[in-house]
Amino acid sequence: MALALARPGLISLAAGFTDNESLPVREVRRLFNDLLRTPQTGQAALQYGTTAGDPELRRLTAAWVRAADRGPAQSRAYDPRRLMITSGSQQFLYMVTEALCDVGDIVLAEDPTYFVYLGLLQSHGLRACGVRLEADGLDLAHLESVLTGLRHSGELCRVKLLYLVSYFQNPTGATTSAAKKRAILDLLRQYERAAGHPIYLFEDAAYRELRFAGADEPSALRFPGGAERVIYGGTYSKPFSTGIRVGFGLLPAALHPVVMRLKGNHDFGTSNLLQQILVRALASGRYAAHLEVLRRRYARKAEVVLAALREHFPPAAEWWTPRGGLYVWARLPRRLRSGPRSPVFQSALRRGVLYVPGVWCYADDPTRRKPDHEMRISYGCVTETHLQTGIARLGKVLRDLMKPSRRAA
Amino acid sequence: MALALARPGLISLAAGFTDNESLPVREVRRLFNDLLRTPQTGQAALQYGTTAGDPELRRLTAAWVRAADRGPAQSRAYDPRRLMITSGSQQFLYMVTEALCDVGDIVLAEDPTYFVYLGLLQSHGLRACGVRLEADGLDLAHLESVLTGLRHSGELCRVKLLYLVSYFQNPTGATTSAAKKRAILDLLRQYERAAGHPIYLFEDAAYRELRFAGADEPSALRFPGGAERVIYGGTYSKPFSTGIRVGFGLLPAALHPVVMRLKGNHDFGTSNLLQQILVRALASGRYAAHLEVLRRRYARKAEVVLAALREHFPPAAEWWTPRGGLYVWARLPRRLRSGPRSPVFQSALRRGVLYVPGVWCYADDPTRRKPDHEMRISYGCVTETHLQTGIARLGKVLRDLMKPSRRAA
Repeated sequence: MALALARPGLISLAAGFTDNESLPVREVRRLFNDLLRTPQTGQAALQYGTTAGDPELRRLTAAWVRAADRGPAQSRAYDPRRLMITSGSQQFLYMVTEALCDVGDIVLAEDPTYFVYLGLLQSHGLRACGVRLEADGLDLAHLESVLTGLRHSGELCRVKLLYLVSYFQNPTGATTSAAKKRAILDLLRQYERAAGHPIYLFEDAAYRELRFAGADEPSALRFPGGAERVIYGGTYSKPFSTGIRVGFGLLPAALHPVVMRLKGNHDFGTSNLLQQILVRALASGRYAAHLEVLRRRYARKAEVVLAALREHFPPAAEWWTPRGGLYVWARLPRRLRSGPRSPVFQSALRRGVLYVPGVWCYADDPTRRKPDHEMRISYGCVTETHLQTGIARLGKVLRDLMKPSRRAA
Repeated sequence: MALALARPGLISLAAGFTDNESLPVREVRRLFNDLLRTPQTGQAALQYGTTAGDPELRRLTAAWVRAADRGPAQSRAYDPRRLMITSGSQQFLYMVTEALCDVGDIVLAEDPTYFVYLGLLQSHGLRACGVRLEADGLDLAHLESVLTGLRHSGELCRVKLLYLVSYFQNPTGATTSAAKKRAILDLLRQYERAAGHPIYLFEDAAYRELRFAGADEPSALRFPGGAERVIYGGTYSKPFSTGIRVGFGLLPAALHPVVMRLKGNHDFGTSNLLQQILVRALASGRYAAHLEVLRRRYARKAEVVLAALREHFPPAAEWWTPRGGLYVWARLPRRLRSGPRSPVFQSALRRGVLYVPGVWCYADDPTRRKPDHEMRISYGCVTETHLQTGIARLGKVLRDLMKPSRRAA
């Protein structure tokens, strides 16, 4: 980011920002005008709220998740009393990790995964343990072998949590299938006795609403054990406005008071004013309408990226076609390293284009070398023209480096 | 709070909420309208900001603190690059404590102090060590004896921080004099060699702008060593809108990157939209104008409280006259306990009035019994009529319990 800001000509395909043009400026203005029209609603919005968050926003949010999951009305998993409003889903993720894990504990995660979370784990003295990722979610056989390995080494007692970015994953765009969610929950449960405590599944659904192709998958809350073992993090930042940093989380009943106490210590509640705006956005249907606009927009941008990749990237490069979210994950031929000190990264920078090196998204693991031939390409906040130019520049870099003369040199 | 919400007739003199009637509803509406009028300013406000916070808000905020302190223009202590924007000053306090302290460490604090912070310390496995409080700040002789005692017991190496609510303190309303701030800084410095590391002074100035009598005292940033040892936390919540949860902190250069990394993990930046509103409130002078309204309002409320205390409380009760902030701290005769299980608290509740028991605001300390005959009375969000009624009810409770017949019973 510092690099990107320092060079004005640079096209950043690295930042996880969202689309600028489609931000709901007029809608938000109207919502604020309505909210602040009378002293009654205005004063209530400008006063402190509660630590858990506005009851109406919690109710609407829980209902939203339940509807998306087609969850039964009586399911405890979607009880608004288990829901808390946070400053983005990131704060929720932070607090859950803080609540569940002690120094030396292990968090299972997709390999690759959200690199900010890897940094968070490291700074808390926690170990990330990667589980191979396939296009439809974790490789179940590998998950089982990782769990068995940890049991054999006596480290299963350190495993509190499996972290999953389950929709249009950051960084790969992969979505975990419903069948895999169910299987993962079952598998974790089988190892709980040996672990000596619950092993929770944290489902980070930050990108769920940014779906532009295919059908929505239910969350793990929907499946047996979901109400007791699934922690679901969501957000209004990416699907509505990142400048309105409001996220949320649903927690098993046993964990809710623990994380609530942390929220009280962190900031005793997210901005009430922003929550009131979201209540109105949801209740009026403007939120849902905005999602439609956003989905069309990202669908178009993803198409532009894919067309540019096909045109400019070497034929040996591969990628999964995203059905939502903000990212395409490109795999280069293995000999083309993409890390921050690699010729690829450095010449890309010289040509004025930035990406997230794939190597950043892998957990430390002494048993294997980190893959270093991938790149995360974000299309969230980049214009279509810049997407085309940026990918053309990257393609030129790759083709130049693949020329036989260059290999010899 | 749960109690207060459950009983609609209850007058809560416990909540630290701010005045409702004077919340700047019209001003904030106008600011949002201006900000969201054009796609340019609107989109920029609805997009992510940076982790440290908006540069213009940081500049304006640093200048505001420097002006209040009459700090020299070239002082490093007020460099905007040392300033970060947070979700209320609470989040800043949380992160600084997290950054500086390890399990088993000791934080020095006023005795009594902000009870939420005591809870935070406890939940992090940290020990609060109380230093006697006088009307103009810490008892310096006691601070010295506490430091000497910790040196003798070999625990000085666990002391990282002295925490001070320096303006119109929560809970007592006391303000630390400039002379004492200077003396505290000097004293801490003398013990650093024995501690083996810096001992920082955290100046929590959350109530500073709510001054309605007397002159403003400069912060400790102004004094020798201020730029290297003082951590200053402030907020726009209480002086502008608690529904807009934006605070800030100034840090010594050595600490800034450490706390910034935490902020990145917590939420990578406070709502940009709220920050843009504050930039406009500050730049337009509306913030300063609002402070004048607020100060007159709290001055009037404090007068109402003091008049009611004089009228209804027993003559043996004592209090300091607040010159700002939201609280009066009443000391009852010692035999009248005020804790949550005391007859005073319980009959107050039956009569429909709630206060914060003084005992909650004292650190655990095996060398002395916690004082248990005080109460924090908040006048922030209570109407004048309810202030009068609430204090009359409390006075009745106290007089009834002091009757000779009751003592015998």
